[in-house]
Amino acid sequence: MTDEPLTRLRLDISYDGTDFAGWARQPGLRTVQGELEAAIATVLRVNPPTLTVAGRTDAGVHATGQVAHLDLTDAQLTHLAKPHGRGAKPMDPARAIVKRLNGIAGLRSDIHVRSAIVAPRGFDARFSPVYRRYQYRIADATAERNPLLRRHTLWYPAELDLDAMTRAANELLGLHDWAAYCRPREGATTIRELQEFGWRRDDTGVLIASLTADAFCHSMVRALVGASVSVGAGRLSGERLLGIRAEATRTSEFKVMPAQGLTLVEVGYPADAELAVRAAQTRARRDRGDGLG
Amino acid sequence: MTDEPLTRLRLDISYDGTDFAGWARQPGLRTVQGELEAAIATVLRVNPPTLTVAGRTDAGVHATGQVAHLDLTDAQLTHLAKPHGRGAKPMDPARAIVKRLNGIAGLRSDIHVRSAIVAPRGFDARFSPVYRRYQYRIADATAERNPLLRRHTLWYPAELDLDAMTRAANELLGLHDWAAYCRPREGATTIRELQEFGWRRDDTGVLIASLTADAFCHSMVRALVGASVSVGAGRLSGERLLGIRAEATRTSEFKVMPAQGLTLVEVGYPADAELAVRAAQTRARRDRGDGLG
Repeated sequence: MTDEPLTRLRLDISYDGTDFAGWARQPGLRTVQGELEAAIATVLRVNPPTLTVAGRTDAGVHATGQVAHLDLTDAQLTHLAKPHGRGAKPMDPARAIVKRLNGIAGLRSDIHVRSAIVAPRGFDARFSPVYRRYQYRIADATAERNPLLRRHTLWYPAELDLDAMTRAANELLGLHDWAAYCRPREGATTIRELQEFGWRRDDTGVLIASLTADAFCHSMVRALVGASVSVGAGRLSGERLLGIRAEATRTSEFKVMPAQGLTLVEVGYPADAELAVRAAQTRARRDRGDGLG
Repeated sequence: MTDEPLTRLRLDISYDGTDFAGWARQPGLRTVQGELEAAIATVLRVNPPTLTVAGRTDAGVHATGQVAHLDLTDAQLTHLAKPHGRGAKPMDPARAIVKRLNGIAGLRSDIHVRSAIVAPRGFDARFSPVYRRYQYRIADATAERNPLLRRHTLWYPAELDLDAMTRAANELLGLHDWAAYCRPREGATTIRELQEFGWRRDDTGVLIASLTADAFCHSMVRALVGASVSVGAGRLSGERLLGIRAEATRTSEFKVMPAQGLTLVEVGYPADAELAVRAAQTRARRDRGDGLG
């Protein structure tokens, strides 16, 4: 720890999760956080900062809209701004860290730092979000199956009924206890607000689910998609999905879907003036034992 | 060879070319033709047929619209139609071969047989086409770089000028000698009709080239894209691309682009009544030493 003032950077990050054991650093495993923090340590040798992330994605889950923050000392900012090569101009430190991180081989090309900015006052990647949005892609028997998109698309062997899935998803919206759709975690609430849950087909027939919530409990998106698929395949009714939720216990009536089709596409933050208030509220809920997800 | 009547099937195929040494069978290398023919031999053990293809793609080149044909004996058709399991009904042989080929592990998920049909009379996957269409994808410095799409998108480090590339591409259209844009091949003509060459950005800013010709000579698409990139980067003028073509010799003024960004998206065939005539014309041109591409 140090008392010197720190500057917080917001990083926007995308990755192909296929070859990662998830976001969170784990000894001996290739993880997104592990690779990024190793790259940061290469760029900033002295006291390299760690990352705080909006969504701790599971193994195999992808992201096009992940957000993280890190705190830099003045010395680190100066180091980043240092011009490279004779006659070169000093660089903006946020631009410099993007360029240098993306140049590091350890990231291969399955992680990409899209941008970095000095974060507005009160910003916290983990505690400030007001929503998270995920997408799930399924090529069913009527869709075009494109091998070029297979790493983030699940191939499902039968035809699924889009209308039935759409109606069932719509019935599930709102603030509820999702215990039946969550893998339990010590001290974590299962009460969440499902703000959006829609299905559509793109122009190649691929089914795309879009789900938004303040936060999701563990494996909730994949459970909701699995329940939808059971409805689309005619094995469960939409009403039964509500019944399962009301029973608030885990069931074997649907399958939690594999990570492959799942992508974190967006994290929503409030206006700058509300960032600190939102972070304080989220932290207070967590301190009451409401968890975070 | 056999004198019994054969039934020709048309296969529509897509693949992620990243992990293949191209289309054509080569001993000791993983190729698309090699994997598909091995799968066909697993399905049809006796006298398995070989494939004839529309576009012999190079190592690393992808396809969403590849077309091939194979000829089956009546005994092979009967074998394919045989019902599996008690009470099962006989299957349509074309549907059966799609299902069984896609079920074979050797194809992993980087080759997908999209469909099979009994080909119309006179159809020849290689000699009947009237055009081939390719796409090339480039994420330049202004585009979103999505790791999920990196296997078929080239990441280019600078910004490219779409308008300049579009104008230059448009000037190149028509029937010309493309010797300056072809890797020479014994006995192959370099005279081709470039019917379409356009550039656009998709909604994430990725530059997409679309090129159509009766046929392309070897490495012509990647050379034309490389010449475009030189124009987009301000290193060559559009007029110079015409000058290079007129000189009809290979040049180092632009680079042939890597395979990664290139996808065969469509092969165009004439109406059924013209298939045999078209194939005969193409074969006759080849016999005169005009090559094929």
